[in-house]
Amino acid sequence: MSPATASPPPAGRPAGRPRAAVLSRERILQAAFAHSDERGADFTLAALARALGVRPSALHHYFANRDDLIAGMRGQLTLRVGDHGFDRIPWHEAAIPWARAYRDTLGRHPGIIAALATLPVDGEPESIADYNRIAEAFRRDGYPEHRIVPAIVALESFIIGSALDAIAPDDNLRPSRDPEAAPTLDAAERAARAQAAERGRSAAEDAFEFGLESLVAGLRWLGSDAGSGTDTGADAGSGAIS
Amino acid sequence: MSPATASPPPAGRPAGRPRAAVLSRERILQAAFAHSDERGADFTLAALARALGVRPSALHHYFANRDDLIAGMRGQLTLRVGDHGFDRIPWHEAAIPWARAYRDTLGRHPGIIAALATLPVDGEPESIADYNRIAEAFRRDGYPEHRIVPAIVALESFIIGSALDAIAPDDNLRPSRDPEAAPTLDAAERAARAQAAERGRSAAEDAFEFGLESLVAGLRWLGSDAGSGTDTGADAGSGAIS
Repeated sequence: MSPATASPPPAGRPAGRPRAAVLSRERILQAAFAHSDERGADFTLAALARALGVRPSALHHYFANRDDLIAGMRGQLTLRVGDHGFDRIPWHEAAIPWARAYRDTLGRHPGIIAALATLPVDGEPESIADYNRIAEAFRRDGYPEHRIVPAIVALESFIIGSALDAIAPDDNLRPSRDPEAAPTLDAAERAARAQAAERGRSAAEDAFEFGLESLVAGLRWLGSDAGSGTDTGADAGSGAIS
Repeated sequence: MSPATASPPPAGRPAGRPRAAVLSRERILQAAFAHSDERGADFTLAALARALGVRPSALHHYFANRDDLIAGMRGQLTLRVGDHGFDRIPWHEAAIPWARAYRDTLGRHPGIIAALATLPVDGEPESIADYNRIAEAFRRDGYPEHRIVPAIVALESFIIGSALDAIAPDDNLRPSRDPEAAPTLDAAERAARAQAAERGRSAAEDAFEFGLESLVAGLRWLGSDAGSGTDTGADAGSGAIS
């Protein structure tokens, strides 16, 4: 049985009375991370209240509902990812360490990645301020206005997918059970792992770095004067640089 | 001993006896999709057996464990994504419709995206055959061997993150609660939505198409002779095409 289907405790039992004095936004968020790390993000405020030994109503003083709590967790992660100089250096330089820190931060809380990726951002001031800061870097660097949000979304989608990929086995595409049935994949996977090892990286890290560099290069190209006119068809855009 | 007791008794309660005859690999997979669509991928084989009205041991005849079942689901999704001409047309042309179909297919089963992204691929013959087919297209087109798997992983990471993004509200980065606190983001988000509407796409679709085109362009660039020497540092790679 998942925590979500557990029935809430009877409200009002004296033994379950909230110790409201020791609760804080910080403590609830900390408990929410611990809870989702252990059981995934599919928890209810009621289950979290039980884990904290308080009544759901005590949590509602801090978070109106589960989405509000997830938004708070998102805000904490945004702070942990940190500033990577978007206000000082070109967006495409800042994006590299920002993406690495973002992937690493999500990777520490895999249970919540899908929830963070799918729940609304709005109303979480830290995240909105962070997106605004990144958007300003793109604008300052002359990126076409209508392409700024798609570029940020593309980076985030890649980072979120990469954070999930980092949880998979490092030789995930290795056809070890029947290599002769997939000889090209087998050789390519070996070559990739050897190359990653030479660079002192895991295969997932190496793929992330290569993909990040490729995506940033492509976003720069399609956001430049030369590339911005070609983005109505995939072939036109990708053909233009070959 | 009477003749009546000579034959082995049913292993369990007669009322709970599995109707093994009606079970099939297909039916179990179908039930697994329905179950995870409703409750997420965090189910056990025991829960799935209950949903099917059979005993867990009946499922074990078809799937050794939960990972094996998830692998079977992955195989079905691979077949649904389909062939997009990797064996006939350049990888960077086939990758566009393949990525669209992949994102759409995952989007129909959001509950299982994280599980599919993180569980091992090996031993799922359909998926391995599919990866081998895609790897062959890269090799045939002269892609550096050690970059083939990183390129496929980068595409998949982007597609998986995009499938999750597609579940989020379409105006997810719109600072609607307090637009004046994030004026650049607000303007950029409006411009992006207007552009997407003009093309008859959702904002998520438009961001996906732009990101996909950018990523494919970047992967082509960094996998080409011109780009392949620069992939040790992000700045070198992304700077080379500006």
